[in-house]
Amino acid sequence: MSRIYNFSAGPATLPEEVLKQAQDELLDWHGAGMSVMEMSHRGKEFMSIAAQAEADLREVMAIPDNYKVLFLQGGASTQFAMVPMNLMGRTGKADYINTGTWSKKAIAEAKRYGEVNVIADTAADFRAPAQADLSFSSDAAYVHYTPNETIQGVEFPYVPDTGDIPLVADMSSTILSRPIDVSKFGIIYAGAQKNIGPAGLTLVIIREDLIGDAPESCPAMMNYQIHADAGSMYNTPPTYAWYLSGLVFKWLKDNGGLEAMAVINERKAEELYATVDASDFYANPVDPECRSWMNVPFTLADPELDGKFLEEAAAKGMKSLKGHRSVGGMRASIYNAMPEEGVQALIEFMKEFEKNNA
Amino acid sequence: MSRIYNFSAGPATLPEEVLKQAQDELLDWHGAGMSVMEMSHRGKEFMSIAAQAEADLREVMAIPDNYKVLFLQGGASTQFAMVPMNLMGRTGKADYINTGTWSKKAIAEAKRYGEVNVIADTAADFRAPAQADLSFSSDAAYVHYTPNETIQGVEFPYVPDTGDIPLVADMSSTILSRPIDVSKFGIIYAGAQKNIGPAGLTLVIIREDLIGDAPESCPAMMNYQIHADAGSMYNTPPTYAWYLSGLVFKWLKDNGGLEAMAVINERKAEELYATVDASDFYANPVDPECRSWMNVPFTLADPELDGKFLEEAAAKGMKSLKGHRSVGGMRASIYNAMPEEGVQALIEFMKEFEKNNA
Repeated sequence: MSRIYNFSAGPATLPEEVLKQAQDELLDWHGAGMSVMEMSHRGKEFMSIAAQAEADLREVMAIPDNYKVLFLQGGASTQFAMVPMNLMGRTGKADYINTGTWSKKAIAEAKRYGEVNVIADTAADFRAPAQADLSFSSDAAYVHYTPNETIQGVEFPYVPDTGDIPLVADMSSTILSRPIDVSKFGIIYAGAQKNIGPAGLTLVIIREDLIGDAPESCPAMMNYQIHADAGSMYNTPPTYAWYLSGLVFKWLKDNGGLEAMAVINERKAEELYATVDASDFYANPVDPECRSWMNVPFTLADPELDGKFLEEAAAKGMKSLKGHRSVGGMRASIYNAMPEEGVQALIEFMKEFEKNNA
Repeated sequence: MSRIYNFSAGPATLPEEVLKQAQDELLDWHGAGMSVMEMSHRGKEFMSIAAQAEADLREVMAIPDNYKVLFLQGGASTQFAMVPMNLMGRTGKADYINTGTWSKKAIAEAKRYGEVNVIADTAADFRAPAQADLSFSSDAAYVHYTPNETIQGVEFPYVPDTGDIPLVADMSSTILSRPIDVSKFGIIYAGAQKNIGPAGLTLVIIREDLIGDAPESCPAMMNYQIHADAGSMYNTPPTYAWYLSGLVFKWLKDNGGLEAMAVINERKAEELYATVDASDFYANPVDPECRSWMNVPFTLADPELDGKFLEEAAAKGMKSLKGHRSVGGMRASIYNAMPEEGVQALIEFMKEFEKNNA
C-alpha cells in the first residue's frame, strides 16, 4: 500500500494514525464484539465514545461552559438555513459580510427568512474587509461571516468586533487550524470533512442564550433547542463520523493541540506562498494579509500547462490539486492532516516543473 | 476477535463480509492511495462508487426509471418535514395513518405545514388497519404511512391502495427485507442504519412528477428538486456511508437479492414468534397478521426476570435485546444482516432460560 499526498479541499486527507486505529477497530471496538457503526447510539459504548469526543473537543478548543456543542447532519449548507430560521426572528434582519463563494451561498439562503444587509462585499477583490470598513446595523439579529473562503483562499486576519451583536461564523475550512477565542462568537459551525473528520457530520458550537427562539414553523430537525436538549440525539446521529472525529480530536491532543497546529500550519502556508511569490511562473491573487493557511490557490502563467502540471504531480503521488472551476488553476488544500513532507514534496515539484517548462 | 449477535434496532448489525471489505480498503481504496472517506465527492473515484451503489440499488429493488434515488442526510426525522414541505402545498392537506411511535412523529411534524387528516389510528391496538377501513380524502396531497413500526413491531401485511393519491412510506426498518413493488409508491424514504448501512445516510426514492413543488420558503437542503438536479451532490454528501451502503447492496446481489432475503427473513421471524407463542413464559402483543419480520418485541410473564434475561443473554454473546422503554420487555431486531445462526442461538437461549426460571 502506498498513500498519496491528497490536496483535496474536502472531503480531505485524514491523519494516517487515525485511519489505522479505525481500521484496527473496525470489526470489534474495544472488545465490544461489534463495529462502532453497528452500535445503538443510546448504548453505553457509543455514549462513552460520544461523550469523550465532546470532552476532547472542548479541551482542544477551550470551549467555555456556556456554549453547547452539537453534532448534527446536513453540512454548512444546512446551517445557512438553520442560523436565520433560529435567530432572524429576534429582529427580522441580519448583517452579512460577503467575501466569496460560500458567503454568497449563506446570503442567498438567509434571504428566505428576513432582511439581509450585506454590510461589506469584497468578494471580487480576493481580500477581507478591514474592521474599520464594517458598520453594523444596530438592530441586526446577528452578523454572519466566512472566516476562510475555501474556494478563493481568502482568510480574515482578525475576528470582527461586532460589539453586542452575536457573531456567527462558517468555520468549515478553518476550524482547528489554530487557537481561536470561542467567547467572541455567538455560533461557530463547520462541516466535518476538512479539519474534523468524514463528511456527514456538522459541528455547531452555540452560546446558550441564542438557543430557543425558533418559530413554530421550524422543522424539529432544524431547531437548535431540540438538538441541544437531546444532547444531539433527538434522532440517530451520524455515529461513525462522530467516532472518527473523536479520534481526530484525540490526535490533536496527542500532537500538541491547536498551538502546535498553528505553528506547523503557518509554516506550511508560508513556504508554499513563498514558492509562488518567488517566481513569475506561478501567481496567487489574494491580498497577502488575507491569504488562507488552509487553501492555497495558485495559477500558472500559461494555463495551457495546467493539464501537464496535474498529470506530472499525480505521477509523483500528489493528487486533487485542480483548482475550483470558478477560479481555475490549482488549489492545494493543506489542512492539519497534510504532513509537512507533503507540502515540501509539492514545493519541490513546483520548482522542478517551472525549471522544465518556463 | 469474537463478534457478538447484535439485536439492536438501529444502528444495527452489518454483514461481516461488508465490514471486512471496508477494513481491507480503509487506508487505500483500490490503489487510489487514499481512504474513501478522504476522496473528493466530485472526483472520479468517488463518482464511480456513488454511481455503482445507485445502479446496484436500482437493480436489487427493481426501481422504475421514472423514480429518482436520492442519497441524503438527516434521517427519517428530516423526511417527516421534507415530505409536507415539498408536497403539502399541492392541496394544503394530507392523510396520515397512525400505527405507532414513528407514525405519530411524522404526523406531529406534518402539522406545521398544513391540514393533517389522521384517517386511521390503530396505534393502541398493535395492528395495522385493514384496507377496507381506509377512506382517503379526495383532495389529499398524499397519504403517509409507516409500513413497519420499529418500536411496536407492527407491520402492514399489504400495501395500501390509495388510487391516484401518491402513497408515501417511511420504510426505515423494512426496506430491503423483501421485494416490494416500487411503482405503488410516490415516495419511499428510509434511514440507512437498519437494513442499508451506517447512520447518517437517508435514502429517498421519489417519483419524478412529485419533484418541483417546494415553496420559496423551503430551505435549499430540504428541496427534493435541488437534490435531484444535483445528483445528491448539491453539497458534500455523507460519502463513507454511501460507499458502505453500496457494499451492502452488492452483498444483497451476491446473496440472492431480495427474494432470497424474504425467504430467510420470513423463516427467522416465524421461528422466533413460534418460540414466543409456544410458551406462557413469553408473549407478543401484536396481531399475528401484522407481526414484523424485522423487529420482534416480546415480554416475559414476570418482568422481574427482565434484568436476568438480558444479563445471561449478554454473557452468551447476544446483546441489545432490551425493549424500547415505551413498550418494555425485550426486542430482537433481526434485519438482513442478522444470520439465522443468531436467531437460532436466541431461540435456544430463550428455551433454556424458560426451563431454568419458569
